[in-house]
Amino acid sequence: MASEVTDGTAAGEANGGAAVKTVAFTAVKPHLFVECSKVCDAVAFYKSAFGAEEVNRVSHPKRKADQELPVLLSAEIKLGSSSILISDVSDDSTAPGKAVGSGVVFCLETEDIEAAVETAVKAGAVSEGEISEGEGACCGKRVGKVKDPYGVVWLICTPTAKKGGDVEA
Amino acid sequence: MASEVTDGTAAGEANGGAAVKTVAFTAVKPHLFVECSKVCDAVAFYKSAFGAEEVNRVSHPKRKADQELPVLLSAEIKLGSSSILISDVSDDSTAPGKAVGSGVVFCLETEDIEAAVETAVKAGAVSEGEISEGEGACCGKRVGKVKDPYGVVWLICTPTAKKGGDVEA
Repeated sequence: MASEVTDGTAAGEANGGAAVKTVAFTAVKPHLFVECSKVCDAVAFYKSAFGAEEVNRVSHPKRKADQELPVLLSAEIKLGSSSILISDVSDDSTAPGKAVGSGVVFCLETEDIEAAVETAVKAGAVSEGEISEGEGACCGKRVGKVKDPYGVVWLICTPTAKKGGDVEA
Repeated sequence: MASEVTDGTAAGEANGGAAVKTVAFTAVKPHLFVECSKVCDAVAFYKSAFGAEEVNRVSHPKRKADQELPVLLSAEIKLGSSSILISDVSDDSTAPGKAVGSGVVFCLETEDIEAAVETAVKAGAVSEGEISEGEGACCGKRVGKVKDPYGVVWLICTPTAKKGGDVEA
């Protein structure tokens, strides 16, 4: 749950007199994109290379009947105390220009999407699209998207719930 | 301090009989790159947009005498429990292809650089360059660099010490 503080300072007044909410984020998760059908391979690699632990995986609903392609749409791994999301670039519209490799977006988790997007936009970020339903390992229920002045894409989303039945310990 | 476990299993034997060390990382920090002289602006933006807190900053030694250019080489901000590093792309050879925006590398902190690089390379990563002296907000003393099969660059470095005298609360 995000904590909110109403900020009635001069900064708030400069923005047309509206009070600026400060939104506390519960988590920041980098979101990596790999080539189509490589999520499984990538998770296995991060386990053996860095000792990562898989904490969540989401199967691809459309590919389940097709035995030739892997069925993993996205996964969440834990490295130390940090979580990293890995998605198949072919299926995720949040991928920045469908870039793989170092094309990373950051997921900020909070219950108050609207306030968080509004605060970011007031600070100079550009909102991209409407708040929508999330899918994959990130963005359990609702997700907003902003691009900051430095070219980084931030997804502001409700905290992820564990997807049942498909989680590997 | 990293903990190390000697792994004498079949996986270790498959790698020419050598035991594989498992290295525990103390932290994972995404490392963002912004345009030359924009580190100060970016820190201010992340403070107002996301409520980030600045926890460390490193001045540029060569620019200190030049009053026309900002002197911030890199900074570390905290967002919730996560740390994010921000560097001036013009001065950091670790920037992936000098990309700004979503060009991100990840810093993995551990005391045992050699074992961590060796494990990653055995798992399929490619080591890039020698282990060298670190600089900036990341990579306090020594840093190794590997690129994984998915194009992501990982810096494996000793934990950062707070730089004295220049830290803003």
